[in-house]
Amino acid sequence: MPEENNLIIAVDAMGGDHAPHEIVKGAHRAALELKNLKVILVGELSAIQAELNRFSKLPNLEVQTASDVIEMGEEAAWSVRSKSNSSIVVGTRLVKEGKVHAFLSAGNTGAVVSAALLTYGRIKGISRPAIAIVVPTPYKPVVILDVGATADCKPEHLVRFAQMGSLFAKKILNIENPTVGLLSIGEEKSKGNEITVAAHKLLTASQLNFFGNVEGNDIPKGKVDICVCDGFTGNVVLKLMEGLASTIFKQIRLTAEGSLISKIGALLLKPGLKKLIKQLDYEEYGGAQLLGVDGVCIISHGSSSSKAIKNAIKVAAKTIQENLIGEIKESLKSS
Amino acid sequence: MPEENNLIIAVDAMGGDHAPHEIVKGAHRAALELKNLKVILVGELSAIQAELNRFSKLPNLEVQTASDVIEMGEEAAWSVRSKSNSSIVVGTRLVKEGKVHAFLSAGNTGAVVSAALLTYGRIKGISRPAIAIVVPTPYKPVVILDVGATADCKPEHLVRFAQMGSLFAKKILNIENPTVGLLSIGEEKSKGNEITVAAHKLLTASQLNFFGNVEGNDIPKGKVDICVCDGFTGNVVLKLMEGLASTIFKQIRLTAEGSLISKIGALLLKPGLKKLIKQLDYEEYGGAQLLGVDGVCIISHGSSSSKAIKNAIKVAAKTIQENLIGEIKESLKSS
Repeated sequence: MPEENNLIIAVDAMGGDHAPHEIVKGAHRAALELKNLKVILVGELSAIQAELNRFSKLPNLEVQTASDVIEMGEEAAWSVRSKSNSSIVVGTRLVKEGKVHAFLSAGNTGAVVSAALLTYGRIKGISRPAIAIVVPTPYKPVVILDVGATADCKPEHLVRFAQMGSLFAKKILNIENPTVGLLSIGEEKSKGNEITVAAHKLLTASQLNFFGNVEGNDIPKGKVDICVCDGFTGNVVLKLMEGLASTIFKQIRLTAEGSLISKIGALLLKPGLKKLIKQLDYEEYGGAQLLGVDGVCIISHGSSSSKAIKNAIKVAAKTIQENLIGEIKESLKSS
Repeated sequence: MPEENNLIIAVDAMGGDHAPHEIVKGAHRAALELKNLKVILVGELSAIQAELNRFSKLPNLEVQTASDVIEMGEEAAWSVRSKSNSSIVVGTRLVKEGKVHAFLSAGNTGAVVSAALLTYGRIKGISRPAIAIVVPTPYKPVVILDVGATADCKPEHLVRFAQMGSLFAKKILNIENPTVGLLSIGEEKSKGNEITVAAHKLLTASQLNFFGNVEGNDIPKGKVDICVCDGFTGNVVLKLMEGLASTIFKQIRLTAEGSLISKIGALLLKPGLKKLIKQLDYEEYGGAQLLGVDGVCIISHGSSSSKAIKNAIKVAAKTIQENLIGEIKESLKSS
């Protein structure tokens, strides 16, 4: 695997709610901090250049022109097939051609998954990919997968997700022997739906550090290192967590503005609350990983700020250095 | 349907984490407030009597002996078949025999569902029951169903849940023409899993006020009146919401205790925060409804306080008076 001073990461400059501004800013910050890393911004040259003009010139920040853009609402498979010059397709092609070591996008998630599947191909032994995301809790981070790549899963898919998630937690989060929980609706092995009850049996028989079933309330408690579920349930969970946390904090802000007394109270409590919000900030972890494809693909949140993009580039670098894809391939040979 | 002064509600005195104390206390509060209602506590006579001795004697609060108890962890179907003298089985039998108009329990949910299915039977046209719960949001309450009765659903089941949920929202929450959202992982009708994509088509063709797909983050925003999903997803959602909200508020308490300054801040902010917590307090709504069975069955949270039990008894009374079961039967005839 490449040394850090040879790492090259392609970043989709056109993807995300705040593209290209926040993306270019985040790429610039990463290139500034990690001088041994090369970042290639993929997208429309004039749009990228206009943003780059705001920042200092860096020798390790380059541009690769891609004339087309896949928009957020476009149908995934169709847009990937018909827009071969889009930043997403060009970015994944750079990985396939060995010109860069990873691709990162905050754009249309479905299109990124489709492009990576089509261009990188699947790892042998994996029939369905999974998106793994690190969810912060006050106790410890929890890896949830799948959060949206494979809505309909068979029990065997969940076992593969557990295997890949374990290697991810070990290599990227440095957790020795991480625990795997199966998201279900009761602790007992008989509880759940048909898929999870069957998956429970397979996971019990596996070599993984299987904790057993976990329930919705166990996620924010950080009960296990990895929480495995189908992509439908995982996506609902992810969006609900974000939505509920932001609703509660918004209501606290409104409460604080209610009277002079509560304004003063909120002011005094502010440093503590800020620390808490930082603890729960997914941007610290920067991005989700598409696992099961034969190459590094980082999917950042559509609303990513430059900080999230910078952290996602760091995760991409670690993923390459730790040879996560190679480790997944190796583990599938022996399982 | 019976007048309020003829309403009789059976309450499982033995079910719940704080039974019989909180249950008896809640039943007493309800009987005190609603003098025209009769409450029958079902369970072990001596245990109930010991609790009743703490309170004033009321003419509309009676006891029905049931010598056995189904514990929280017991396997549902087996315990219902083998414990015919348990408070849960006796309670549902009182409804079936026409001696009471509703049964309420904070005990083993699976056992309550099994007993109601077995004793009441299903409403004609309903092949799977659903548990409907009212989730408070800062904007408006949202009815979620199913939250755990039917883990594996077919698309047609979700349509029935939407029908029953609409009548529930109309009759119990007084919402005219309530909107139905289908919980999925994208707004477009093509997004979701196999079940939801098929259900979307059926709901679009139905007479219901179908809003379309909603996502996890739309629930705390109160985007629709009714959120329909399979019992697996709904149960994960419900437990995650409870768990995340309690984790955040716990962390805010810990933050407040961090320093003298933040202690003072928290003290000043307290009245506002208390109001917010009350807004999000599921105990205000008192209990979930088991829909699809031929009788009124209210399932309260295992950790129910006397306040939750009192409010659940009120919901039971309203359910009888509004003739919700009759309305569901009627709507199924015409659909």
